[in-house]
Amino acid sequence: MSTVNKKKAVILLSGGLDSATCLAIANKQGYACYAVSFDYGQRHKAELLAAKRLADELGVEGFKTIRIDMDGIGGSALTDDSIAVPEGGVAEGIPVTYVPARNTIFLSLALGWAEVLDADDIFIGVNAVDYSGYPDCRPEFVSAFEKLANVATKKGVETHSLSIKTPLIDMSKADIINKGISLGVDYGLTVSCYQANDAGEACGKCDSCRLRTEGFAAAGVPDPTRYR
Amino acid sequence: MSTVNKKKAVILLSGGLDSATCLAIANKQGYACYAVSFDYGQRHKAELLAAKRLADELGVEGFKTIRIDMDGIGGSALTDDSIAVPEGGVAEGIPVTYVPARNTIFLSLALGWAEVLDADDIFIGVNAVDYSGYPDCRPEFVSAFEKLANVATKKGVETHSLSIKTPLIDMSKADIINKGISLGVDYGLTVSCYQANDAGEACGKCDSCRLRTEGFAAAGVPDPTRYR
Repeated sequence: MSTVNKKKAVILLSGGLDSATCLAIANKQGYACYAVSFDYGQRHKAELLAAKRLADELGVEGFKTIRIDMDGIGGSALTDDSIAVPEGGVAEGIPVTYVPARNTIFLSLALGWAEVLDADDIFIGVNAVDYSGYPDCRPEFVSAFEKLANVATKKGVETHSLSIKTPLIDMSKADIINKGISLGVDYGLTVSCYQANDAGEACGKCDSCRLRTEGFAAAGVPDPTRYR
Repeated sequence: MSTVNKKKAVILLSGGLDSATCLAIANKQGYACYAVSFDYGQRHKAELLAAKRLADELGVEGFKTIRIDMDGIGGSALTDDSIAVPEGGVAEGIPVTYVPARNTIFLSLALGWAEVLDADDIFIGVNAVDYSGYPDCRPEFVSAFEKLANVATKKGVETHSLSIKTPLIDMSKADIINKGISLGVDYGLTVSCYQANDAGEACGKCDSCRLRTEGFAAAGVPDPTRYR
């Protein structure tokens, strides 16, 4: 099928394991993919380079990094250097790595780009099984955002066709990894660590590293992560 | 009442007539106001200086200008210089000055700041009477965003207390102007024009100028706008 006839989708691409798999799934489903990553003042800027590499490797029609001044708002260990990233293991409740309204902000900007592209579908790699307990990774959130999108925009009001796609929502981390491998994702290109260094090397101790390491073990697949 | 006991609110402050009135109303209602304006690549950057002046003049506890790369997304006469601002009068339908997902993006960032401040209320000066027909100025949009806010955030999930306040929603432009004057708003400080020059002087021809000029005439109040 030529690009011209493909349905377009905007893909949120952080550079981590989940969003890389999400992009591979959208590609496999035949979408012309437009990937977007966000430079929001996060500690782990290495994920932005990873996002660009993944976009090149997996193939996209367009790629954009949008800068947002979220570090001016703060309130998270990921955007405020004075709050330490927890290293003691995934605990109950919403952790300090939660970034206030992050996925709402990211989906809003993706929605704006989708409208300009005339794309109906936005893919986000949220997962409510092996996750950090963030409220904006749950199905209730996704459903509320989809409703909003269809009253908030010219396209939504005219077509009611805007859809937020979450192919990973019910999958375990091991399922996600196996799915990605079947689609040819090179997880050695991805960076998940909340405090990855500039070379993309992981700490191995933060929640994101722990969920990822356990995922590779459960999937029975060699872990390609470069630990420092 | 001392600042310490005041309820906090985040106020979207564009520098125009409506948001200035909205801030004056929130102040009058006794809120400790935190105003936010957005540098999103708009033509009419003069409104950002106006927002800062209004925050100083009307009084706020905090003021922030957040930069967002929306000009990289485009799709509007306000963010893409190759699309002309219409000057022929307010027409039927959604005009080319509509900015894809703008109020969704602005409210999302305001929501993030509200959560960090522990503020329940966000004020937005949308108005669905004398307005340009933008979908994200309607009560359906506001209601959908409020629902989203309460599932999207830690604060929302824990308290269900987040509220989007729209004191101007059912008011005519003349009513808004009379309300603002009763609260001491100096409309000479506001900039509404979509193509205001750097000195803040208005074109007198765009939809925003027309709605404003007619508003002052209907209110029977001298129009303090500086036309070029």
